[in-house]
Amino acid sequence: MVNFDYQNPTRVVFGKGTIPQAGALLKEYAASRVLLHFGGGSIKANGVYDAVKKSLAAAGIEAVELPGVQPNPRLSLVKEGIKFCRDQKLDFILAVGGGSVIDSAKAVSVGVPYGGDVWDFYTGKAIPQKALPVATVLTIAAAGSETSWSSVITNDDGGWKRPLDHQTIYPVFSILDPETTYSLPAYQTACGITDMFVHVFERYFTTVKNVDLTDRFCEAVMKTIINNARRLLENPRDYDARAEIMWCGSLAHNNLAGTGRIGDFASHMIEHELSAFNDVAHGAGLAVIVPNWMKFVYKHDIPRFVQFAVRVFGVEENFHNPEETALRGIRALRDFYTSLGMPATLSEIGVAEKDFQAIAGKIRKFDETRGTTGNFLPLTSKDVLEILKLAK
Amino acid sequence: MVNFDYQNPTRVVFGKGTIPQAGALLKEYAASRVLLHFGGGSIKANGVYDAVKKSLAAAGIEAVELPGVQPNPRLSLVKEGIKFCRDQKLDFILAVGGGSVIDSAKAVSVGVPYGGDVWDFYTGKAIPQKALPVATVLTIAAAGSETSWSSVITNDDGGWKRPLDHQTIYPVFSILDPETTYSLPAYQTACGITDMFVHVFERYFTTVKNVDLTDRFCEAVMKTIINNARRLLENPRDYDARAEIMWCGSLAHNNLAGTGRIGDFASHMIEHELSAFNDVAHGAGLAVIVPNWMKFVYKHDIPRFVQFAVRVFGVEENFHNPEETALRGIRALRDFYTSLGMPATLSEIGVAEKDFQAIAGKIRKFDETRGTTGNFLPLTSKDVLEILKLAK
Repeated sequence: MVNFDYQNPTRVVFGKGTIPQAGALLKEYAASRVLLHFGGGSIKANGVYDAVKKSLAAAGIEAVELPGVQPNPRLSLVKEGIKFCRDQKLDFILAVGGGSVIDSAKAVSVGVPYGGDVWDFYTGKAIPQKALPVATVLTIAAAGSETSWSSVITNDDGGWKRPLDHQTIYPVFSILDPETTYSLPAYQTACGITDMFVHVFERYFTTVKNVDLTDRFCEAVMKTIINNARRLLENPRDYDARAEIMWCGSLAHNNLAGTGRIGDFASHMIEHELSAFNDVAHGAGLAVIVPNWMKFVYKHDIPRFVQFAVRVFGVEENFHNPEETALRGIRALRDFYTSLGMPATLSEIGVAEKDFQAIAGKIRKFDETRGTTGNFLPLTSKDVLEILKLAK
Repeated sequence: MVNFDYQNPTRVVFGKGTIPQAGALLKEYAASRVLLHFGGGSIKANGVYDAVKKSLAAAGIEAVELPGVQPNPRLSLVKEGIKFCRDQKLDFILAVGGGSVIDSAKAVSVGVPYGGDVWDFYTGKAIPQKALPVATVLTIAAAGSETSWSSVITNDDGGWKRPLDHQTIYPVFSILDPETTYSLPAYQTACGITDMFVHVFERYFTTVKNVDLTDRFCEAVMKTIINNARRLLENPRDYDARAEIMWCGSLAHNNLAGTGRIGDFASHMIEHELSAFNDVAHGAGLAVIVPNWMKFVYKHDIPRFVQFAVRVFGVEENFHNPEETALRGIRALRDFYTSLGMPATLSEIGVAEKDFQAIAGKIRKFDETRGTTGNFLPLTSKDVLEILKLAK
C-alpha cells in the first residue's frame, strides 16, 4: 500500500422520496440565492424539476435558472454560468441532472471567484483556491460526480476534453433518489453502468502490491454492478437494483477505492478524446476501449488479470494456464458490455481509421517527459494507436 | 435498501512516516492552543509522543498535556478535561493513542461548550449542538474512533458504559501510521482485530433485504481482516499487513458499511456491560459473546448465516443442509478468534454465573417499550441471560 491523504466531505441523502428535502437542505447550508443548473427537458418530463422547484419555493430559496447543459458539457456554457453568477450575485449552485450537469456546475463554481480563464484549471495552468458551494440532485447513475472531486469539461474551441480533480469541488451534499432513474432510456442506463464499472476498473489495475482491502472493495463494487445490471435488463423499474446501481456509481468514483493505490486511467484519457472528437457517449466509448486496452496490456501482469477473471466474473481458474484464465476474464467483460447493448468497435461509434492518428496524438499525457499516458503500463502515442487499431 | 443520510468528513492522512505532519496539519486547521490528550507510557516508549511534540513545536503550536486515559475511558477524567480546556482556553484537542484516548477526547470536545453534565449526551438526555475540533494520531488499530462519530465512556459512578453517536464528533483529521502498531503486545493486537471485525459483523447481520453492495463491502473488510491477521500472527512487523489491518479498522466503523441497512449491535451492548462490570478488554469480551449470540439467533435467518459462512470463511456450502453450513460458519469464526489467542468463555475473562442476572439487567435497551436490545433479533433481558449462559 502507498501512503495517501483522503477526505470526502460530501453528504449523501439517499433513497425514495428524498428530493423534497432539497430546499430544507439548502437552507441548512445557508444558501440564499441559488443557480439552478440543468440540462434539457428530461427533468421536466420526469417530474424532478417540479419537485425541486416546489421544495425550494417552500423553503423560501430564490433560484435563478441556467439550463442547456449538453452531454460532454461545454466550456462556453460554463463561461456563461460564471458571468451569470457574478452578475446575479448568486452564492450557491444546485445542479439537477447527471454527471454532465454536475461537472458543468463544478466548473462554474471554481470559475466565479477566479480572475483568470477557468480553462486554466483544466490544463493545469492554475490550481483552484476556492469555489462556490455546489449541491446536486442526481438523475443519472453513471459519472459519480455527485460525490467526486472531478469535473470533465469539453473546450468547444478545438474539441479538447479535460478533467479537473480538486478538493474544492466536492459537492456539499447530493440527493440520490433511485426512482429518478426509472425513466432513463435503456441505452443511457447501460452507458452509465459501463462508466461506473470502468471507474473502479481503472483503480483496480494498479502496479502497487499489497492492496488487499481496496482490491476486495473494487471487486465488491464491480460484482454488484454486474449482478444488478442484469436485474435491470429484466426489469428497469426494479427499485432495489436501481438503488444498488446508484450507490455503486457514487462509491466507484468517490476515491475510496483508490486509497493506497495508484490507478491507471489510460482508458479514460483515450475515451475523452473519442468523445471530444465526435461527441460519443462516454460509456459507449469506454465499452469499446477497455477490453482492447486489456488485450494490449494483460501480459504485463497476468496474475492481476487472473484475479479479475476469477473474483469479478467467477471464471473457473485454470491453474496450469493463467493466461487462458486472464483471457477468459477479458472475454467475460466484453460479453457483459455486449449484453448491455454497448458497442464493441470504433466503427460502430463512428470513428474511422483515418482519424486514429489524430486522436492518439491528442491524448493527455501523465508523464510529459516520456510522453506517456496511464500508470499500469504507461502508454506512448504509438501504443494508443495500437489499441485503437485493436478496437477498430 | 433503506433510505440513508450519510456524511463522513474526517480527513485521513495514512502511511509510514506521516506523524511529522501533525503540526502543519493543525496549523492548516487554525489550531492555536491544543489539548494534547493521551494515555499512559506507551506513546512515550514507542517514540510517538516525541515525534508529535517535535512536530507541534516546529509548527509553533502550543500544547497543554492531559495524560491518564485508561482503557474503558472514564467520565471522571473527561470532566477534568472539560474544566481544563475551559480554564486554559484551549480551542482544539489532539488525541494521541487508541480508541479510548480518542473517545475520551470526543467526550471532552462536546462537554466544553455545554452548560450541563456531559453524561447527558451518553444517556440521551441531551443532543450535542457543537464541539471543539478533535484531531487524532492513531496508535492502535481497533475501535475505528479515528474516523467514526462514536465515543464510548464509562461512568465510574455505578459502572455504566454508554455510547454517544453524533455528527459533531467526527475527528477533523486523523493520522494513521501503521508502524506505530508494531510495538503493541500480541494480545492487544488481537483484541483490536476482534473489535474491528465485530464492527462490520454487527452491520452485516441485518434484516434489511437487497443490500448487495454493502454486503459485499462488509465481506471485503472481514476477509481482509482474517487474511492479514494471519500474516501478523506470523510476523508482527509485516508493514503491509499492519497497514491493511489499520485501514480495515477505520472502514469497519466509519458508517459506510452501514449505509442503507440497519445493523444489530446487541453483542456490543452486551459486551459494554461486561467491560463496565470487570474492565475486560472490549475485544476479548466480544470474542466471547459474538459466537454465542450467533448460536442463539442463527435460526431466524439461516440464509444470511450461510452467506456469511461461504463468502467470509470460504466454507464449502452444503446445499442440502443449509443449517450445517451456517453452523460451520459460526465454528469458523470461533476458531479464528481462538487462533488469535482470544478467550472463548466468560469464566476465562473472570465473569461468574452469579453475576449474569445483574449484567443482563443493565443492558442498554434499543426499544424501551418492549425492553429489547439489538435489531437482527431484538433480545429481551431473558434472551441476553440465555446468551450469557451459552457463553459461560
